[in-house]
Amino acid sequence: MRDVMITGIGSTPFGRLEGRSVQSLAVEAASMALARSGVDRSEIGALYLGNFVAGPLSGQEVLAGMVGDELGLTGIPCTKVEGACASGGIAFRHAVMAVRSGACDAAIVIGTEKMTHASGGQVTQALNCAMDNRSDGPSGLTFPGLFGLAWRVHAERYGTTRDDVSAVVIKNKRNGLKNPLAQMGAELSADMIRQSLPIADPIQLYDCCPVSDGAAALVIVAADRAKSAPDLPIRVRAAVQTSGPARISGHDDLCSYRTTRLAAERAFAEARIAPGDLDLAELHDCFSMAEIIHTEDLGLVPRGQGGKWAAEGRTAVGGDIAVNASGGLLSKGHPVGATGVGQIFEVVRQLRGEHANQVRGARLGLTQNVGGAGVACTVSIFERSDA
Amino acid sequence: MRDVMITGIGSTPFGRLEGRSVQSLAVEAASMALARSGVDRSEIGALYLGNFVAGPLSGQEVLAGMVGDELGLTGIPCTKVEGACASGGIAFRHAVMAVRSGACDAAIVIGTEKMTHASGGQVTQALNCAMDNRSDGPSGLTFPGLFGLAWRVHAERYGTTRDDVSAVVIKNKRNGLKNPLAQMGAELSADMIRQSLPIADPIQLYDCCPVSDGAAALVIVAADRAKSAPDLPIRVRAAVQTSGPARISGHDDLCSYRTTRLAAERAFAEARIAPGDLDLAELHDCFSMAEIIHTEDLGLVPRGQGGKWAAEGRTAVGGDIAVNASGGLLSKGHPVGATGVGQIFEVVRQLRGEHANQVRGARLGLTQNVGGAGVACTVSIFERSDA
Repeated sequence: MRDVMITGIGSTPFGRLEGRSVQSLAVEAASMALARSGVDRSEIGALYLGNFVAGPLSGQEVLAGMVGDELGLTGIPCTKVEGACASGGIAFRHAVMAVRSGACDAAIVIGTEKMTHASGGQVTQALNCAMDNRSDGPSGLTFPGLFGLAWRVHAERYGTTRDDVSAVVIKNKRNGLKNPLAQMGAELSADMIRQSLPIADPIQLYDCCPVSDGAAALVIVAADRAKSAPDLPIRVRAAVQTSGPARISGHDDLCSYRTTRLAAERAFAEARIAPGDLDLAELHDCFSMAEIIHTEDLGLVPRGQGGKWAAEGRTAVGGDIAVNASGGLLSKGHPVGATGVGQIFEVVRQLRGEHANQVRGARLGLTQNVGGAGVACTVSIFERSDA
Repeated sequence: MRDVMITGIGSTPFGRLEGRSVQSLAVEAASMALARSGVDRSEIGALYLGNFVAGPLSGQEVLAGMVGDELGLTGIPCTKVEGACASGGIAFRHAVMAVRSGACDAAIVIGTEKMTHASGGQVTQALNCAMDNRSDGPSGLTFPGLFGLAWRVHAERYGTTRDDVSAVVIKNKRNGLKNPLAQMGAELSADMIRQSLPIADPIQLYDCCPVSDGAAALVIVAADRAKSAPDLPIRVRAAVQTSGPARISGHDDLCSYRTTRLAAERAFAEARIAPGDLDLAELHDCFSMAEIIHTEDLGLVPRGQGGKWAAEGRTAVGGDIAVNASGGLLSKGHPVGATGVGQIFEVVRQLRGEHANQVRGARLGLTQNVGGAGVACTVSIFERSDA
């Protein structure tokens, strides 16, 4: 398997993008990525597109072929993958595999989603398709409910407090203020969070990521084809995808996802690095409690200490490891099928040293993208190509 | 890239399978395939699942992970792909690529769909997500309408008659009578077809495939791992996927699909055979006119002669090339995400010499699976491994 690099990258802002279609967002991000890729469109041998809810919310499927057509990439295999909110990460891994295996020398991955035009009820119904509706549907459980339950377990087991969890929110909302692509950065106090609307006790409004529109794209090329790229290529050191049960009863622990632990183990082995070698990580903080769980599952933070580390500033930019310097899903937004690709876009900018909320001297970064209640997970590791 | 084989195969009957879930159909077919695969479940390194309409019709996504979980295949990457009615064929190609590239030594592909529990309106709405709804939605065009237009062009250009087209229906419905998995085989006369309900003039009821439930699965292994399989392994000689525009205005000809022509050209080159070398083909006859178009695009029949060849019995079992000996979509049924995998199941049985409607001495077979109005196409070629 060959060494592969990310060259061109593109992203729309994430947020409420009125009057835009899910396809046009994809085309915008992909056009930016292609323009900076250092390869000609005729060299792109595969297109992978991550999307989750365009069917129910926009009445449109077959997006991979449609977007390929609009980009002038007809004829090549264009494939849409779906793994709920991990669709983007899964699409990325497939583009990497296509180039690594020699099936082609260059591939493009696009994540895209349009959600804000739909009603809250429609969005909730669409997202709930990521649950096992036979086993968990009848319980009435939703994703905020699930992370509320996890929070209660975490609090009882490790003594995690509302203020510990608020530290994650304050950090990510503050990071988002510095990210021009972010949907809703803010300077929040623990009191403001404590006074926000209850959603699924103990989860409150600021603990939840917003509903978002957006798209991101990356061009992946064989290492020997990266030399003509105008921007610093970023090496893909690991790209791992795992699966597990969608049903809650399949979890051995509400505060730990086996798919994440397994993906992390494989990714660190593939990259031949340890968690402590990382400078930054973009994690799937769909809820504040999710970031705490993920930092622990990935081994970035000792088990049970995710909230405490956030409260002590150890996961802030300038701390032990910068977690969600982009603002994360909480602040940057969560256009579900685009998120996994958008995370990698952020890490690439960090490793190039050109991020608006730069982690000083960043050389190694990780992304983690989760689908449903851990039914799918991708963990990827990236390095500056001059490292 | 290594040589790969199909060992285990499985399929539910196609038809109205009441009280079944889309997941349980997948698990049933996959369990059969795994049981005859010659490899242990722990050796399966990737799962690909083709599905198109489980979101809108069953409120369930993340099927790849869920089905992997039910099969005890947790941890490995389980990926759902969507390319409308070509979802199954696309999933197959990805399972082949995973093994060919050495990413794993064995992979499983599953196609599954549950449709008959939904209303006709819901089914039509779900299937129309395969059209470009911005450009073609406002026209009111549906898939029967599209193939009705193609028919008119074909009739005007090549003199194709109602009876020529009926010959396809009569052949496929007759073939279906011999296939125990088929939804609706029948012995029809040209008169019966002529008297059936008009759907989208000139298309009548018998020109249309039914709405169906069903699932099929295949285990793909590296050639050197196929020796322990209990049944004759079937070699994958080609697995090609192409994409093109979803919008009708992107077609250069209503009677010819560029994605099919391109996929055929690449597949015959990959397999190093000519169309005339084939013994049989399973084609995407969602409508009778579609089979005529596909036989011509694939080069199985001279341009414009698809109807005439059917009328002369040259595409029947025992003719020049047996097209849709299984009954095809018209007779076997069209559980949309399962169809592409089901076609390969049929070809494997033929090449093993164990089909209920056997093509005598079959050694080389082809499948063609089409998504939407040609937005995606897969063409695959198979050979007896003792050939």
